[in-house]
Amino acid sequence: MNNLHREKEIKLPFPTPPFWELLGIEVVEIDDGYAKLVMPFHEKLTQPYGIVHGGAIFSLADSAVAIATTSIVEPERKVLTIEMKINFLAPVKDGVMEAKARVLRKGRIIPAEVDITNNGVLVAKAIATYIILRDEKKL
Amino acid sequence: MNNLHREKEIKLPFPTPPFWELLGIEVVEIDDGYAKLVMPFHEKLTQPYGIVHGGAIFSLADSAVAIATTSIVEPERKVLTIEMKINFLAPVKDGVMEAKARVLRKGRIIPAEVDITNNGVLVAKAIATYIILRDEKKL
Amino acid sequence: MNNLHREKEIKLPFPTPPFWELLGIEVVEIDDGYAKLVMPFHEKLTQPYGIVHGGAIFSLADSAVAIATTSIVEPERKVLTIEMKINFLAPVKDGVMEAKARVLRKGRIIPAEVDITNNGVLVAKAIATYIILRDEKKL
Amino acid sequence: MNNLHREKEIKLPFPTPPFWELLGIEVVEIDDGYAKLVMPFHEKLTQPYGIVHGGAIFSLADSAVAIATTSIVEPERKVLTIEMKINFLAPVKDGVMEAKARVLRKGRIIPAEVDITNNGVLVAKAIATYIILRDEKKL
Repeated sequence: MNNLHREKEIKLPFPTPPFWELLGIEVVEIDDGYAKLVMPFHEKLTQPYGIVHGGAIFSLADSAVAIATTSIVEPERKVLTIEMKINFLAPVKDGVMEAKARVLRKGRIIPAEVDITNNGVLVAKAIATYIILRDEKKL
Repeated sequence: MNNLHREKEIKLPFPTPPFWELLGIEVVEIDDGYAKLVMPFHEKLTQPYGIVHGGAIFSLADSAVAIATTSIVEPERKVLTIEMKINFLAPVKDGVMEAKARVLRKGRIIPAEVDITNNGVLVAKAIATYIILRDEKKL
Repeated sequence: MNNLHREKEIKLPFPTPPFWELLGIEVVEIDDGYAKLVMPFHEKLTQPYGIVHGGAIFSLADSAVAIATTSIVEPERKVLTIEMKINFLAPVKDGVMEAKARVLRKGRIIPAEVDITNNGVLVAKAIATYIILRDEKKL
Repeated sequence: MNNLHREKEIKLPFPTPPFWELLGIEVVEIDDGYAKLVMPFHEKLTQPYGIVHGGAIFSLADSAVAIATTSIVEPERKVLTIEMKINFLAPVKDGVMEAKARVLRKGRIIPAEVDITNNGVLVAKAIATYIILRDEKKL
């Protein structure tokens, strides 16, 4: 988990969102159209079978796309998720989840993909569509 | 929010999952292949723009499908999300989110749809695929 | 198949697309934010097991969303599919496939849902996102 | 288009499906959990704006996943698409579309991803879920 320490050097365009604090999501890497976020396993994230709830994994993946997207957008612009689709490939019972998001094409409508791994195994894969808001008041 | 009181009468096939407690998700109605769950707005669920994080809405929607699915499955069977796709239609800033999930076809592979409303407005729509596990040890 | 005759009264904002002719897709109903299209079973549409190829069903569904979307857009505007997700619920071996598309929210980004039935059975369900193009030259 | 000639060496587990002939889909490469299929641009595949219909691109992508999936399944087994989600990134006006499908995890439920390129540009990306049928009669 050395990667977590790198997070301190990363300047986000906003304070840590409450929902990230709630789930334990942190950014560890940002590049041009790319972001890597992590979320350690915690009992609070689990569903009835003791594995991490799909919604927690989706939240990590969606957050990774948000950061990958803002990395290619002017700082004053807001971005929103239009839609996202996720496939769950394996249950998560411990360790750290890592989401690596990559923008597939630049533009006002931004498609992106995310791989989520856990202990070196691909546990989920998602495709999302983001939009850059033109008008701040629209939200 | 009178609906929330109905929740006490509902017998779930499992204790309240930790992730539901974390997010404030509650079941208010279960019928054959149908479930309605709610999640009140809370600041802890928000992303940087002050609206509810898409991952929180996805979590509510996924949970609703889980309950709709278990309603048509023998109690000892486990069900898992194979995949889910969600479209976000409007931001959520207050009130209660309601997710109504409906199984589209019975079988071992169970497709379902979910409508998520907030203050009477459709704020998200999702389609999911669930699987009934044959072998408990497989998880 | 009496519905097919109604098609003649329907004025489309464009000549019948070549791909519709290839597959046998026809419009039978257009309303505000709604469209119903049909595609009869034909051997040419089948995959190796003798059932209709998922791509043919997707094509019908996507076309239905296109018409539902253009119904709420100024005639000179073009619309494009950003993305679509489809769940296949049952195989199609004969009869006519009917796709009923409904816009979920008006705006520049248009989410829509489609139900595809065959002999009265729901055989597929899809959610799509369309965009209204601002700049014709962008295509 | 030299790749097209390689197709003759490829032994498919079934005769060319009618829908592939209709659209001009051909297999050019099969490996373990991987397949590459092509579809040349043709006017018959176009929608009203003269670009290839999204349904044709979906059909190519879905077919690529089918072949990638059958490559890891015993020859007597049938596979079916449970669902697929596709994002369209750029319009196709000429050239050849290439779909490269890759199985993401082996099992009875098979998730896969597909990249569709045209003249070297990524024009669509899809994620699909396939199922291996246990009982042939079920179709």
